[in-house]
Amino acid sequence: MDYSEITFDREAAVGTLTLNNAGKINALSKQMIKEILQLLDQVAEDDTLKVLIIRAAGNHFCAGHYLAEMVDAGVKAYKSIFDQCTRMMIRIHDIPQVVIAQVQGIATAAGCQLAAWCDLIVAEEGARFSTPGVRIGLFCTTPMVAITRAIGRKAAMEMLVTGREFPAAEAKALGLVNRVVPLAELEATTRDLARQIAGASGFALSIGKQGLYAQADMTDAQALHYAKHTIVMNNMAEDAQTGIKAFLEKRTPEWKNR
Amino acid sequence: MDYSEITFDREAAVGTLTLNNAGKINALSKQMIKEILQLLDQVAEDDTLKVLIIRAAGNHFCAGHYLAEMVDAGVKAYKSIFDQCTRMMIRIHDIPQVVIAQVQGIATAAGCQLAAWCDLIVAEEGARFSTPGVRIGLFCTTPMVAITRAIGRKAAMEMLVTGREFPAAEAKALGLVNRVVPLAELEATTRDLARQIAGASGFALSIGKQGLYAQADMTDAQALHYAKHTIVMNNMAEDAQTGIKAFLEKRTPEWKNR
Amino acid sequence: MDYSEITFDREAAVGTLTLNNAGKINALSKQMIKEILQLLDQVAEDDTLKVLIIRAAGNHFCAGHYLAEMVDAGVKAYKSIFDQCTRMMIRIHDIPQVVIAQVQGIATAAGCQLAAWCDLIVAEEGARFSTPGVRIGLFCTTPMVAITRAIGRKAAMEMLVTGREFPAAEAKALGLVNRVVPLAELEATTRDLARQIAGASGFALSIGKQGLYAQADMTDAQALHYAKHTIVMNNMAEDAQTGIKAFLEKRTPEWKNR
Repeated sequence: MDYSEITFDREAAVGTLTLNNAGKINALSKQMIKEILQLLDQVAEDDTLKVLIIRAAGNHFCAGHYLAEMVDAGVKAYKSIFDQCTRMMIRIHDIPQVVIAQVQGIATAAGCQLAAWCDLIVAEEGARFSTPGVRIGLFCTTPMVAITRAIGRKAAMEMLVTGREFPAAEAKALGLVNRVVPLAELEATTRDLARQIAGASGFALSIGKQGLYAQADMTDAQALHYAKHTIVMNNMAEDAQTGIKAFLEKRTPEWKNR
Repeated sequence: MDYSEITFDREAAVGTLTLNNAGKINALSKQMIKEILQLLDQVAEDDTLKVLIIRAAGNHFCAGHYLAEMVDAGVKAYKSIFDQCTRMMIRIHDIPQVVIAQVQGIATAAGCQLAAWCDLIVAEEGARFSTPGVRIGLFCTTPMVAITRAIGRKAAMEMLVTGREFPAAEAKALGLVNRVVPLAELEATTRDLARQIAGASGFALSIGKQGLYAQADMTDAQALHYAKHTIVMNNMAEDAQTGIKAFLEKRTPEWKNR
Repeated sequence: MDYSEITFDREAAVGTLTLNNAGKINALSKQMIKEILQLLDQVAEDDTLKVLIIRAAGNHFCAGHYLAEMVDAGVKAYKSIFDQCTRMMIRIHDIPQVVIAQVQGIATAAGCQLAAWCDLIVAEEGARFSTPGVRIGLFCTTPMVAITRAIGRKAAMEMLVTGREFPAAEAKALGLVNRVVPLAELEATTRDLARQIAGASGFALSIGKQGLYAQADMTDAQALHYAKHTIVMNNMAEDAQTGIKAFLEKRTPEWKNR
């Protein structure tokens, strides 16, 4: 594939997608969203990849949608942008790989949504998360879906109706962020976490990553039954039998399904 | 309107409802609930109001239902009280204005529910939140709905089955409260927050405030689609076009829809 | 009843179930699950019991399923184990008693699920919660149901895809644990909490404990209506009338319904 606004590289089972338009603070233009979607399709099919890092070039993670595309464009154009953006979000939860957002500087509006929708977030101490659409008359309704599913209602409401920046430490306390580290350690910390996760069976990881979202919207009883059948299926798989036996014999397992 | 247990005043786009029966620790009597419902209807229709503060006269926010109305009264009387109280809660989430609870002293049982059901809470350092109904044989089931939607299950269960007071700082750590300040700063902090929110387009605020609850009960996929169509609609609105253009031209927007 | 892997004793309205197979780190063998289910049935019928503590013999709470039963056993055997384990979880939420997990040492995989599924958790400072199934190819899907309903999505995902141990203090900050105390105070703290809860009307406690889960999966509007009818029913009960009158007359209530 030939990308103009993102880049992709890999190291063993860890892929890295870089938002690569620092001049526009990595705004989610129609072109960038299109490229991310293409890459996610490619990653989803690659069963040698277990983890995907989403990082950004420059001083900031992402400033949100490219606002120049959102004035005087007409309802069809707006619907097309948000159709594609929504497909991108759905795809992030749907691919079998664990997706880690690596955030420096600002993650704003749809940029905050992108980070919050990833499975995990590692942020540097200076990172700031905000949904300031309310200040320009365009409420961050799409980011709200991600924010309200990651943190409590009261904090989500404050973030959304004030538009203020939530620094990394506050975002961590609220549960939005998994790890906060100095900027100099951001890349290494994210890679270490990715490598650690990638040490597990890809089959098990895919069951877990997709399953967390699959059961999140179920009632307790539905989720218990879904989980019961899933783990029985998992128990029958080669990787589980390999892993349990290795554990009982105090050996390191070697995965066959990837 | 002529109110006996509440008062109402306004300053620009910020309205303030005061629970005004300090002698009964602002108990939610049938009369007070009736008056709050009338006022909420009036506020909902007033599109010059963007934020509503709910505060209380005296040393405490609210002691809950007026228990003298709840002995030997019969099932019809009890159902009438809780019908009206439930209508009040539904109305608080339904009006287009952002509602901020300003809490001093105790917020107990239905008083805790009222605060927890508001969109945001500012509390003074000495404020205490509790649901002690379990101790008098009347479990705080209605407050439970608000509490379990604001904080985690384990803390909610503890609050409800022990009935103990949760001080403001603990309530903040659990996500129930947005800001904790010294009593002397409570009023000013709440007003500053209200004014800051009221600087936004009322149209955008109403989309966001009502939308947060509308999508909270949806599955992830439903919520993403709801949000997509909402933001496209919002994008077509005059306030959004005004706001985006002002942002791109580094001007302060002037809102037309209120 | 005659139990081989658990014990049961009681003190007034507080029952205590002890996982009693320290040699196998209290692994949830088929036999232990069967015994717990029998005991839960017995407890549920005993309306003189208001609180159930689940504790464990030895240095650790529970290491999860008994893995020796999970190799080369066939799909029917696996389904039978998880059918029974799921029934045990459903029963814990269904019985009228408040269930407190008292956790020392490790609570791993299904052991973490058991603790997280109890209504409340008291843990000692050295307790560690983990779901390391991913490392042996058997993703902790069933524990995931409990974890994702107790803490935020980002932390739950990290716990599940990394398998790392979350120490008691971190588990407390995330909302998984109610109290963290030194090991020497674990038993006394748990008993004090149990006795405090048992001071309330058993009828009110059962409404609250079962009700919290009943309304957790409802929409806001459904939950408000469920709560309204529940509290009206509760208000008509003898214990509520006794309790409210005692409160208004500044007396200690004496419960008739247990």
